[in-house]
Amino acid sequence: MIEEQDYLAKQNLHKLSDIGEFGWIDFLKQNQGNLHDFVKEGIGDDAAVLTFPESSKVVWSSDMLVEGIHFDLSYTPLKYLGYKSIAVNVSDICAMYSTPIAVLVSIAVSNRFSIEALNELYQGINLACEEYKISLIGGDTTSSRAGLMISISIIGYNDTNDIVKRSGASVNDLVCVTGDLGAAYAGLQLLQREKKVFEENPTVQPDLSSFEYVVGRQLRPTAKLGLINILKEKGLIPSAMIDISDGLGSELHHLCKANNFGAKIFSDRLPIDFQTKSVAELFYTDVEQYAIYGGEDYELLFTVNPKYFEEIKSIEEISIIGYTVNEELGIVIETKEGDEIEIKNSGWDSFI
Amino acid sequence: MIEEQDYLAKQNLHKLSDIGEFGWIDFLKQNQGNLHDFVKEGIGDDAAVLTFPESSKVVWSSDMLVEGIHFDLSYTPLKYLGYKSIAVNVSDICAMYSTPIAVLVSIAVSNRFSIEALNELYQGINLACEEYKISLIGGDTTSSRAGLMISISIIGYNDTNDIVKRSGASVNDLVCVTGDLGAAYAGLQLLQREKKVFEENPTVQPDLSSFEYVVGRQLRPTAKLGLINILKEKGLIPSAMIDISDGLGSELHHLCKANNFGAKIFSDRLPIDFQTKSVAELFYTDVEQYAIYGGEDYELLFTVNPKYFEEIKSIEEISIIGYTVNEELGIVIETKEGDEIEIKNSGWDSFI
Repeated sequence: MIEEQDYLAKQNLHKLSDIGEFGWIDFLKQNQGNLHDFVKEGIGDDAAVLTFPESSKVVWSSDMLVEGIHFDLSYTPLKYLGYKSIAVNVSDICAMYSTPIAVLVSIAVSNRFSIEALNELYQGINLACEEYKISLIGGDTTSSRAGLMISISIIGYNDTNDIVKRSGASVNDLVCVTGDLGAAYAGLQLLQREKKVFEENPTVQPDLSSFEYVVGRQLRPTAKLGLINILKEKGLIPSAMIDISDGLGSELHHLCKANNFGAKIFSDRLPIDFQTKSVAELFYTDVEQYAIYGGEDYELLFTVNPKYFEEIKSIEEISIIGYTVNEELGIVIETKEGDEIEIKNSGWDSFI
Repeated sequence: MIEEQDYLAKQNLHKLSDIGEFGWIDFLKQNQGNLHDFVKEGIGDDAAVLTFPESSKVVWSSDMLVEGIHFDLSYTPLKYLGYKSIAVNVSDICAMYSTPIAVLVSIAVSNRFSIEALNELYQGINLACEEYKISLIGGDTTSSRAGLMISISIIGYNDTNDIVKRSGASVNDLVCVTGDLGAAYAGLQLLQREKKVFEENPTVQPDLSSFEYVVGRQLRPTAKLGLINILKEKGLIPSAMIDISDGLGSELHHLCKANNFGAKIFSDRLPIDFQTKSVAELFYTDVEQYAIYGGEDYELLFTVNPKYFEEIKSIEEISIIGYTVNEELGIVIETKEGDEIEIKNSGWDSFI
């Protein structure tokens, strides 16, 4: 402990215990930003207080990011991590076809983190809050024996009774995804390789400039709130939806299980960025494996009635990748050669 | 890792990865119990969905318990820990004069925890949910590199616009506490001593039977929801309220700061159980130190207009311990001998 304190002091950094609980809450309050109209009480009491428009449905979720499991601080800037921790939670609210309102941010942090480091983390958190127009209105800050853990709870609402669940789809619905797939996993492959190179020879400077997109997708994914708003404006309500956090394969299985059906996906319809392809080539891997089993893209996977085919097709950021089928036909992908391959129920799994 | 797996296998225990994410979510769903009327969707989607009575205020909070900081598994049964993790969150909703509805439970857990151990934890969680009539409707489960972390988010409501905040009190209001103080800290002292004895000589069996009450207060504190209901029935609305998690001293400072006033407390009015006194004697400590600076009692500290004096006095579980004063008079305790001593802004602090 004393060593850590000395280490921080030598660099003119401060630790949480220097400012104490009052000081930290004051810091958070100052960084609270504008409060959403629905928020009646923010940081500073035993609980936050909100009101919602009449007959709203309140949508509520939580997600945890653990150092060494979900992120590696040797290549993850804290500001990006803060941004990501909010984005992954907003993504869950998007997947309910709902609008996010506010978050509670709880962090457990070891003494090696200075206030200055936490400030970086909160800059990213605040940036994401501004971008998604949500308020940070509470949480909990505590010590940990090892590493950093960020646990966020998010609340959103839906005032038109158009909640979209994982269930609700029919056979022959279109299967769609937003954005492109596999990029976050490609970014992770690169970052992990660079880390290894650096560990072996710290004088080597990584050059990731040709791979900015995929690295950015890993370090700072965005939630697809803009696209939910486009769908809402067009009156396009998906029949079922889930966000892609653990990989298309795993999420397809969730969706199919909730609806008791199967799905047929076409390999040539999978949206894949050219950088993702380059990385897959670099690692001698089939890029479809990235697209199907790579996690953390935080795109949305949804089904929609085929009557919306033309309208969905006209939205650039959405790809129709297949359709739902009877359960006994399984969950399969048709290759360019016309072969059918089973999509396995696997993806990123934190139960290591 | 392999060693841990062998260790579990040898004892015929199972790890999370044996049943996978689907299996674990199914387990949680089966243990979900009855859903509160306000809950429209529980475990199993990207988010839970709730509706609230018209013009309700929604009260929302979160609290984190970290192994090695908030609990020590060498003397904390997992079932008790599960119960406590819910109770400390319910306590925050009580402190807002509100009614808890539902929780999201996120846990990060290292591979040394078997499913059987997690089952114990969830038995305690479910027991508390039943007792406080709340539903467990979601959360997140992930691995951790070290130890167990429980992060809970709780939602409650208040449909009569009687939210009680930390602010709102006037000078000369009565200062009241529920239950008794210092017992949880006394329990902690005993448990830590027994742990040390055991480490030095594992054949010694601890006999804590004369201290069941204080040990129970530490390991399995209860939230004061029943008392909130009594106050509501009698139409007694506190002017300000906070729950005592870090100790009376610390919470008094929070309350006084929020209201810009001071407080005068009388030492002979502090409610202290005789077991707490016995433990303080055993450790040659002034029991008032336990009552003022010992944390984790999860009693409620509140102020109330003096016109309610008789009614408050008639409630057995409430003690009137002093009154609020002008800010310049400070936060003081009057001893039995008539001396005034400053109450410091200290208590249990997780920023170690």
